Amino acid sequence: MDLSIDTLFFLVELLGTAAFAASGAVLAIERGLDLFGIVFLGCATAIGGGVLRDVILGQIPPQAFVDYAYMLTAAMTSLLVFVWARVRRWESTRVFVNGPFMNVLDAAGLGIFSVIGVRNTILAGFGGNMFFCVFLGMTTGVGGGMLRDILSHTTPAVLRKRIYALASIAGAVCYYLMRPIAPKGSIAAATLLVVVLRVLASRYRWTLPHIDPPENKD
Amino acid sequence: MDLSIDTLFFLVELLGTAAFAASGAVLAIERGLDLFGIVFLGCATAIGGGVLRDVILGQIPPQAFVDYAYMLTAAMTSLLVFVWARVRRWESTRVFVNGPFMNVLDAAGLGIFSVIGVRNTILAGFGGNMFFCVFLGMTTGVGGGMLRDILSHTTPAVLRKRIYALASIAGAVCYYLMRPIAPKGSIAAATLLVVVLRVLASRYRWTLPHIDPPENKD
Amino acid sequence: MDLSIDTLFFLVELLGTAAFAASGAVLAIERGLDLFGIVFLGCATAIGGGVLRDVILGQIPPQAFVDYAYMLTAAMTSLLVFVWARVRRWESTRVFVNGPFMNVLDAAGLGIFSVIGVRNTILAGFGGNMFFCVFLGMTTGVGGGMLRDILSHTTPAVLRKRIYALASIAGAVCYYLMRPIAPKGSIAAATLLVVVLRVLASRYRWTLPHIDPPENKD
Repeated sequence: MDLSIDTLFFLVELLGTAAFAASGAVLAIERGLDLFGIVFLGCATAIGGGVLRDVILGQIPPQAFVDYAYMLTAAMTSLLVFVWARVRRWESTRVFVNGPFMNVLDAAGLGIFSVIGVRNTILAGFGGNMFFCVFLGMTTGVGGGMLRDILSHTTPAVLRKRIYALASIAGAVCYYLMRPIAPKGSIAAATLLVVVLRVLASRYRWTLPHIDPPENKD
Repeated sequence: MDLSIDTLFFLVELLGTAAFAASGAVLAIERGLDLFGIVFLGCATAIGGGVLRDVILGQIPPQAFVDYAYMLTAAMTSLLVFVWARVRRWESTRVFVNGPFMNVLDAAGLGIFSVIGVRNTILAGFGGNMFFCVFLGMTTGVGGGMLRDILSHTTPAVLRKRIYALASIAGAVCYYLMRPIAPKGSIAAATLLVVVLRVLASRYRWTLPHIDPPENKD
Repeated sequence: MDLSIDTLFFLVELLGTAAFAASGAVLAIERGLDLFGIVFLGCATAIGGGVLRDVILGQIPPQAFVDYAYMLTAAMTSLLVFVWARVRRWESTRVFVNGPFMNVLDAAGLGIFSVIGVRNTILAGFGGNMFFCVFLGMTTGVGGGMLRDILSHTTPAVLRKRIYALASIAGAVCYYLMRPIAPKGSIAAATLLVVVLRVLASRYRWTLPHIDPPENKD
């Protein structure tokens, strides 16, 4: 079996795509959307960040419309979530998708997408501007989840979740700095960094400082 | 009277623009916005999808800023809704705009906009990528309504309404496949398809499968 | 001290950036976001409008990623708001940021950003299309605040606030028309116009006509 390093990265990408799509599909079900809405929100979550990056970079059509693997993975995963929620009890689906196993996949997706966002920005000729590279890395990593939350009318999780966008930024910076030394090793290292940060932050409930309690006026 | 087929398409476009603008203006009034907010949301609903498509395609300035007919129609319609809601009872305005007559106009707009989105994407040189063409067809058709709902802070109707984005996609695919055979006939056929789908879906309350009832946690 | 007119404009820009960032940071605190969310929303509010304009114009990377002064000002201001809200009472922070002093700074930001949006659109070669210039002037002026409200899940203030987007449009039109006569004087005049409009609208509670009371269905 020829499991080269590139194949491995591609697998991590697909797993991340599936995890993102599952989070979108579950939210769609919670919102009472129909099958189309479920697949739509699953796909938007999975490929939204990359499409946003490509539109900003002016790379038209966006990659997700050229290489169908991601969209197919996202649509299939959304369908699977729907079927599972119908056949088995809905509650069990929700618990699984929000559980620790999917959290690791989600972290892997966050990591590899952030890295790919930086790489594509460098390949597009903006390697001299670290700030912009990291921004588009973060956009690729968290953009889909942001789109999901805006479309489904909830406060973006990226702003609420523990060390989420920050983990994406850490991975993007790590990759940007390590890339000249180890082009492929840096992909793995930066992705792992994000996974470790996210898993630790979830498990040990790391929080950044915040003002507590604000008198909420709404 | 010279009512050629192109003039007819243009008329359908303007009617669709008016229907979209009316839906935006009514939502703005429901939200308690002032006259500017009403006209703003009416125009955003009517031209938002096309502007989004043009920005993605890199066609700057977007068509709506070059050909004023659409923006004028949208602004005038919004004003008309405002005046009508002031002079007559507000409730009657709301009932009319949400009623079956406007629903057909809205469906006509959804159809012709979806078709035009596909055509403009083909004309921009992306005719080889059916997936991308259909995506921008749908974007043109439902993008304005999505913008309306995000700006006015409601769950996007496109994700809740019966067979709405799906009708847009059906029309886009139909036009894409028929265009090589009948360039103009396909515009009419695809638009009609969307109208028929939407009217039937509204009248007979077609639904796609969904999970029911999810334990809503919010 | 060499306080030339350009330096003065730059200062007004930075003050406006700070005022925008402060409004984002305060909203983030009200939403219970952590330090990252506070700085993120502060920066998004301050530079979002300009980034949106640059993406639409195809000017990549956007100015805010080339000239760091704005991002730094926004991040520092957000941090300052956070520290102040921690050290002193939160209520006093909120009152100050929403008070008349910051309102004038916010109006100055609205004015200078609207003007700069028009200028950059003209410099990008679209000076012949007044409509598009004014649109991107308004986008630059109110886009950041819109992004802030969408991300933090509130009805966009730009649609609710007294004469806000309209003041931006007035400034943009004023600059567009005066620019051929007085390139620099028109910047000052248009910015001042926005400040005066906003301050008067806030103080004397100017309102545009609206339908009152709509039977709110939500």
